[in-house]
Amino acid sequence: MPFPSEFWNTLKTEFPENFFSTEEALLQSHSVDWTTAFSPQASLVVFPRTTEEISRYMALCTRFAVPVVPSGGRTGLAGGAVATQGETILSLEKMRALGAVDVLGQTLEVEAGVPTEAVHEHCAQHGLFWPIDLAAKGSSQIGGNLATNVGGVRVIRYGLARQWVLGMEVVLPNGTVLQLNNALEKNNTGIDLRQLFIGSEGILGIISKATLKLVRIPPKPQVLLLATHSLENILSLFLRARQAPFTLCAFEFFTSQCLARVQQHRKRYMPLETPASHYALLEVETENPEALEAWVGQCMEDVVVDGILAQGGQQARQLWELRESISESLSATGMPHKNDIALPIAHLLDFCKGLEAFFADKYPGWEVCLFGHIGDGNLHVNVLKPPDMDKSTFLAKTSEVDNDVFSLVKQHHGSISAEHGIGLLKRPYLHYSRTPEELNLMRMLKKAVDPLGILNPGKVLPPL
Amino acid sequence: MPFPSEFWNTLKTEFPENFFSTEEALLQSHSVDWTTAFSPQASLVVFPRTTEEISRYMALCTRFAVPVVPSGGRTGLAGGAVATQGETILSLEKMRALGAVDVLGQTLEVEAGVPTEAVHEHCAQHGLFWPIDLAAKGSSQIGGNLATNVGGVRVIRYGLARQWVLGMEVVLPNGTVLQLNNALEKNNTGIDLRQLFIGSEGILGIISKATLKLVRIPPKPQVLLLATHSLENILSLFLRARQAPFTLCAFEFFTSQCLARVQQHRKRYMPLETPASHYALLEVETENPEALEAWVGQCMEDVVVDGILAQGGQQARQLWELRESISESLSATGMPHKNDIALPIAHLLDFCKGLEAFFADKYPGWEVCLFGHIGDGNLHVNVLKPPDMDKSTFLAKTSEVDNDVFSLVKQHHGSISAEHGIGLLKRPYLHYSRTPEELNLMRMLKKAVDPLGILNPGKVLPPL
Repeated sequence: MPFPSEFWNTLKTEFPENFFSTEEALLQSHSVDWTTAFSPQASLVVFPRTTEEISRYMALCTRFAVPVVPSGGRTGLAGGAVATQGETILSLEKMRALGAVDVLGQTLEVEAGVPTEAVHEHCAQHGLFWPIDLAAKGSSQIGGNLATNVGGVRVIRYGLARQWVLGMEVVLPNGTVLQLNNALEKNNTGIDLRQLFIGSEGILGIISKATLKLVRIPPKPQVLLLATHSLENILSLFLRARQAPFTLCAFEFFTSQCLARVQQHRKRYMPLETPASHYALLEVETENPEALEAWVGQCMEDVVVDGILAQGGQQARQLWELRESISESLSATGMPHKNDIALPIAHLLDFCKGLEAFFADKYPGWEVCLFGHIGDGNLHVNVLKPPDMDKSTFLAKTSEVDNDVFSLVKQHHGSISAEHGIGLLKRPYLHYSRTPEELNLMRMLKKAVDPLGILNPGKVLPPL
Repeated sequence: MPFPSEFWNTLKTEFPENFFSTEEALLQSHSVDWTTAFSPQASLVVFPRTTEEISRYMALCTRFAVPVVPSGGRTGLAGGAVATQGETILSLEKMRALGAVDVLGQTLEVEAGVPTEAVHEHCAQHGLFWPIDLAAKGSSQIGGNLATNVGGVRVIRYGLARQWVLGMEVVLPNGTVLQLNNALEKNNTGIDLRQLFIGSEGILGIISKATLKLVRIPPKPQVLLLATHSLENILSLFLRARQAPFTLCAFEFFTSQCLARVQQHRKRYMPLETPASHYALLEVETENPEALEAWVGQCMEDVVVDGILAQGGQQARQLWELRESISESLSATGMPHKNDIALPIAHLLDFCKGLEAFFADKYPGWEVCLFGHIGDGNLHVNVLKPPDMDKSTFLAKTSEVDNDVFSLVKQHHGSISAEHGIGLLKRPYLHYSRTPEELNLMRMLKKAVDPLGILNPGKVLPPL
């Protein structure tokens, strides 16, 4: 993308040395995320070290209408941080300052480029943690966690990232710096502007700093794997778990198809012998292990056909590994097409029945692997390429499959993207989850905040 | 306010009978809230029974640029729901439908006019509740609870109302109806538009329905009153309580001045004999009462000078009454000027020291009563008229006092309105808590969503 020479001159003369790079390797690495569907094409990468540098760079880009893609840990799965049209990339990776933990207030101020796991490590010495925990935590950064309102494995216990941020510093497309909410739990002084930027995938502003809200490290949880013969039984188990005398921290679900793939790939230990079709992995906090055992005993009288309560940390990790290696095992043993959807919990059963019926009817022989954070209504729908179908036919059909799946999602008042966001990948399907009125209001907000459309252009909102 | 005859004609011919009223008594009752500072003046009140009627009324008001004040339970304390300039009032009181409780999903769909307490009663039979609990719950309505992002007494345990709503239906100033988020816990599909309307005091849209998120009714809590000799000790106690082997549900604070006023007015039972200056009221959940007693014992070795753990529900209520009758007792025994502020918890001590010093210096002899949800950083600063000062002198001075108090709040990165909102009352002071950049962005959002400025005009945002 040809930018005016004055843009380049200003970059060279008014910013520190090494502020920007056009090195091919850096352009390549910084213009992709974990999504594989897009070809990288960026014009330059900038590496601000301060909010003031971000602000000046944005003001410069506004002056010359230069597009900017904010770039964090790039672990996204929807292409929200890819540069495909010669944009410039603003990497937060040099902004990694971690403040001192405020033990009394249970807060921590960090710059946006701090990796999620570094926050966990930093707080642990004080017996505190930031309760957002996700598989990508070694690479993902706080700015991206907030820009995508990340969830993770303990949403049912702690909620989404939105709940765990007090203050935010945000740079607008024109370079204006907003200081939002400081370290306040309560602040009813007009529109809460933080909320605009949380979860909007960098199309409205660049999150440069955040004051995180912490909690004390919870006691070591108990981990259980329970086997059932149906999704009905899984949901019945879920209802009982929410009424049981313990605190539910995670309620994960997978089918025997998923488990078979994990065993094929990872040769993992399978602790249950009774054949079953639907599994639930529970993590619970309790001060009363006897009551937990009694509860499991009651469940085994009807809905549960087999189960195990992990004896110690190693077995707990082994049970979690069964759940956490599903995604990798599906990719290693076949060619999956993935969707990350959410349903109101009350619709889960009917949705899954509808899904089964429509695959049986329209795509007989296709293997559908279901798993996910079912306690949040979140289902990963993975469809595997039939062995006798060639790759290109399968890829061509998946877009048709998506439209069918998303129609069913819409019919059940669900979301086409529970956690992964919209980015570039899901943009063509956004209308399945958001009405024309909502799209119109989103466009009005985008226009008001970013009138030139220079910030993360083309992401989230489909072209008119 | 003279509206065109076509506006009146449309109202009479295209809306149901009894849709609107210009009866003086109704105009009076519906144009004030619990704030006493404003004189009511409204042109008419409308009572829609459906979202469709709200939408048609807003479209009509847009056509003739007629101003509209959304009206819920009118328990606000900042004049957010008052009509003082001949506006029309849109009351939600006829929209009181309560859906069936979704026990599996733990959700409940309600219309905006349902009183908070009615939600509690409706859910209780299923062992569920909506964890937003406030003194005004008998009158306050769900729509207003969301429009003001209400907190209440259990914020430290459950957070603010923002966390306890899944779906929302909102009518925009032009009559557009938005259906937002259904009953979804996770939905990462672009800008979360719900957040615009939560806490913005009805200046952007009218919340007409909501799908609330419920939790199971917690076990009966333990209630403790602990006495100390300083605010330092209260904060030290707070730190220990967050690290203790129980779940903290409330951590309230008041000074001996407050307590003296309660005893003067209500002749309430005072269970502690040791003289003390600062009190904390704790509500905790625990399965292990012995550990709680041991913890209290440890605290009494240093920071706590006296304490009581309620034995049974009646005593627990009596302890809560001490805290809850403070506001009423101050009004009954003197003339208080009230502020509801918040500080980052780490700043509480320095702020209070600064406050004390500046009153001693600038307003010697004035009585300052401090109490509040200190676990959320929330302080009610009540200043009492000195007995020998006449009322008008006091009232004239309170605006000066406010500017001084708010300057100190700003210096400590606090909020001039923790819970009560801005409305009309705090509008002149908004700049103490929000920067010019924030005010500018809020104005841009208001302009984008309500270009004619007909919705709750004059509220929150100060005139340019």
